[in-house]
Amino acid sequence: MSESADRDARHKARMARKKAIVDEKIAQATDEYGLLLVHTGNGKGKSSSAFGMVARALGHGMKVGVVQFIKGAATSGEELFFRRFPEEVRYHVMGEGYTWETQDRQRDIEKARQAWVVATELLSDPDIGLVVLDELNIALKHGYLELDQVLADIAARPLYQHVVATGRGAPPGLVEAADTVTEMALVKHAFKAGVKAQKGVEF
Amino acid sequence: MSESADRDARHKARMARKKAIVDEKIAQATDEYGLLLVHTGNGKGKSSSAFGMVARALGHGMKVGVVQFIKGAATSGEELFFRRFPEEVRYHVMGEGYTWETQDRQRDIEKARQAWVVATELLSDPDIGLVVLDELNIALKHGYLELDQVLADIAARPLYQHVVATGRGAPPGLVEAADTVTEMALVKHAFKAGVKAQKGVEF
Repeated sequence: MSESADRDARHKARMARKKAIVDEKIAQATDEYGLLLVHTGNGKGKSSSAFGMVARALGHGMKVGVVQFIKGAATSGEELFFRRFPEEVRYHVMGEGYTWETQDRQRDIEKARQAWVVATELLSDPDIGLVVLDELNIALKHGYLELDQVLADIAARPLYQHVVATGRGAPPGLVEAADTVTEMALVKHAFKAGVKAQKGVEF
Repeated sequence: MSESADRDARHKARMARKKAIVDEKIAQATDEYGLLLVHTGNGKGKSSSAFGMVARALGHGMKVGVVQFIKGAATSGEELFFRRFPEEVRYHVMGEGYTWETQDRQRDIEKARQAWVVATELLSDPDIGLVVLDELNIALKHGYLELDQVLADIAARPLYQHVVATGRGAPPGLVEAADTVTEMALVKHAFKAGVKAQKGVEF
């Protein structure tokens, strides 16, 4: 047998074993219900991954609700884009900038609480299949919202509704309550090398 | 001073210091050019984050190209959704399933090379502001494409074009060439607890 044919044969055998394992796992995974996902960590991709899920959900005909707990300096591309679909996406930008921009804790608390009222409306609506709580983790980390109340409201949502919460520093209680948690870890970031935040990438 | 007022005052001082540092960093970050981003790791969010960037880019009026190197079993929500915008998104699904489904190395290599031909067309088009190379890392990891050729073609792209490559096991040479690299690390995944892959979340 030639070296290449041998390599191909070993590949085939290895992949056949892998397929058996994967098929078995898929057969075991039969539960279906709304998930709570958390995207945290210091790397890029926490919010953008949530907005990729919005695109997925819309592709499958689901309706989506978005609450952004912290507004950036410029209107984000995701906001500009998803506002094109007012019948499918309920889009709320509630914050007033990063906390080091406002420097006013009481106002930040007030804004976070107003945002949570809007979030609870989305979390009560069975027509909405996916709720994005963008930068919720920051509001929790700073103590602007009470974790117990937030977890109770999320737990009381419709059975098949998915929720994704993003932001650095997700509190342990939120991680514990979640079904799927990803830590976006920073390996390298262009910003540190002196590159500006750019349209389509960071916002 | 009451305890709460004291806490608010300390918050204000801390945030003012943070703002000075952040403003300084932003002032230093002046370069602007197309970035190469890599999303890797075993966690969820690599592809969805790339598709969130697609939404961002479209929001800013950019055109986007997508090549999916591995096709899933079902048509993905992102494909269903972004195909709504044929004037803005050039969407190509080139693969034939995971490698453990095909179990045929030569065919996988052939498919990956065909996909790369399409990718190079997108990477040569200055009208396209963002190119998504979804699961490219898998094709590189398996040796279906030559890293040197892939890096050369990416490096030769238009100056302001962003590229994002996703998939587990990004090879070191790709990480080295990238501007921004995120490792999506698995903290917890619902699938392991017996929950099915679900629409809007995993595909």
